[in-house]
Amino acid sequence: MTPVSELWTPALVVDADVLEANLTTMSSALPGPRLRPHVKAHKCSALARRQVELGHPGLTCATVREVERLAAAGLGADLLLANEVVDARRLGVVGDRYGARVTVAVDSEETVRAAAGGGVREVLVDVDVGLPRCGCRPEEAGRLADLARSLGLTVRGVMGYEGQVTVMPERLERAAAVEKAMGLLLQAAGDVGGDVVSAGATVTWDLNTWATEIQAGSYALMDTTFTPMAPAFRPALWVEATVISVAPGWAVADCGLKALGMDHGNPTIEGANVLFCSDEHITFVPEDGARVGDRVQVWPAHIDPTVAYHERLHLARAGEVIDVWDLDLRGW
Amino acid sequence: MTPVSELWTPALVVDADVLEANLTTMSSALPGPRLRPHVKAHKCSALARRQVELGHPGLTCATVREVERLAAAGLGADLLLANEVVDARRLGVVGDRYGARVTVAVDSEETVRAAAGGGVREVLVDVDVGLPRCGCRPEEAGRLADLARSLGLTVRGVMGYEGQVTVMPERLERAAAVEKAMGLLLQAAGDVGGDVVSAGATVTWDLNTWATEIQAGSYALMDTTFTPMAPAFRPALWVEATVISVAPGWAVADCGLKALGMDHGNPTIEGANVLFCSDEHITFVPEDGARVGDRVQVWPAHIDPTVAYHERLHLARAGEVIDVWDLDLRGW
Repeated sequence: MTPVSELWTPALVVDADVLEANLTTMSSALPGPRLRPHVKAHKCSALARRQVELGHPGLTCATVREVERLAAAGLGADLLLANEVVDARRLGVVGDRYGARVTVAVDSEETVRAAAGGGVREVLVDVDVGLPRCGCRPEEAGRLADLARSLGLTVRGVMGYEGQVTVMPERLERAAAVEKAMGLLLQAAGDVGGDVVSAGATVTWDLNTWATEIQAGSYALMDTTFTPMAPAFRPALWVEATVISVAPGWAVADCGLKALGMDHGNPTIEGANVLFCSDEHITFVPEDGARVGDRVQVWPAHIDPTVAYHERLHLARAGEVIDVWDLDLRGW
Repeated sequence: MTPVSELWTPALVVDADVLEANLTTMSSALPGPRLRPHVKAHKCSALARRQVELGHPGLTCATVREVERLAAAGLGADLLLANEVVDARRLGVVGDRYGARVTVAVDSEETVRAAAGGGVREVLVDVDVGLPRCGCRPEEAGRLADLARSLGLTVRGVMGYEGQVTVMPERLERAAAVEKAMGLLLQAAGDVGGDVVSAGATVTWDLNTWATEIQAGSYALMDTTFTPMAPAFRPALWVEATVISVAPGWAVADCGLKALGMDHGNPTIEGANVLFCSDEHITFVPEDGARVGDRVQVWPAHIDPTVAYHERLHLARAGEVIDVWDLDLRGW
């Protein structure tokens, strides 16, 4: 086994015990098909396999490549692309080649026709429940479902993402916003038919009691931004870095912008004040000094775009790398 | 040939004519060894080859992998790793395996010893010239050079990065800051010896008249943040995206956080107001409306971390893809 301290840096490291605790906590609370784990957060079919083993046959995807690679990995029992596409031909191929069950979100006449024309068989009608992003207006959902059925598609139900709550630090405010959003989604569900109401995220996992399935993803690896809103889960992933330079007032490690998602701000180093990140550097002020060659753990503010920069995850326990998982779902 | 409009999206597209104009403008102003192009901005050995063809035998790297891959591509005539490493063994191998000339930056006793112990033969002493990042204090440079020589290393000279000027929008302010920074570097150069004074960046390309070689990288592809400070160069790279959803007040395209470096803020779409980016979406308000299936060009605020998310560059002219270049220098 390789010690974590001998990994070439920067390297993504996952605390295997924290990961497993996060996974089992969520699977206990939302067993079986109540949870449809979102793979966009981790981009790793090996991790998705563990989620399926814990009883969740259905997975959520954000890109066509995620669907393709999961199907190729034998995890295609029930793949939802929770996103719109105007060209669904690659999705149609996945169903035929791997015997995968593929469902795609639709929110317009164009995307309904793309699904049918691309050889996809099943859709969810995506409904705008308050986040200015994808989704039709609730009152349009029934008409889109009718169009889809007229083109031979099976309409499994609705989905809607209440992502507007990620900026609400107060739990009561989040709860009220989720209830309002799900009111809109259930109204649409009545018009659409089908038995699926797919919604949610890690930050609403214990607030959204209306959806039939929760599309949570961040809970597995977590990050520093979402932890206060979902304290049942702990950050499991850090970027292992090496101190390469020490000045009288600061130190520099080899984990920069290209090893971190930066849209949620700077990462965290325990016992240090992070000043800024450059392409391949992080400049920080350590409370207790630092020496060239020291290792530091850099905790990303946002997991998803961090993982997307790296080629593999190193699973670690007690300072040893116990497994290496390819981040095979990256790209498009 | 594939039309750009048929590329799977999101896709990195480079205007081949703008790229060539940027390259030749810089090569005319800083011919031959006056320019040491920095490959970190583009991560592409095919683009580096074009820079070498334009007369610049030396290249600047930020990571060990960049050094390795350039050497393997036959571009190892004079590779500078303008960064510190505490383990230089992979660099030593590059020299032996490919007959490459490898020089590494050092700024501490530890990094000098790492260079010597790892089989590297040549170093530059990296000097802190005002950016709180790597580099020794100017008055320490001579001592480090002596140590390096005592360990059998050749000391080619000094380097220093005046990156503090990237936040100075006024040219006169930048010019004064560059002069002050280079004063520190030349002081150290006198103590260190050697004939190389390596410094600079695209934002100081026509201000830094003190360095013997300029480490510019962004000029090739440019981005919206640096263009006002280096207007001789134009943005050549965009992310081609597809509109996947249209609401009454906004539209959504398939180019999100994971296709863009976000540390310099939101990207730009001409004729539109960008509201926000999510993992795989950009929500924007188009001035003249949008339809599902429309293509949009998303111009990144920061090239370097944008390129690092993608697998390849599509070179385009008149709407056709004329070449595809692998982004083979990514990762570590």
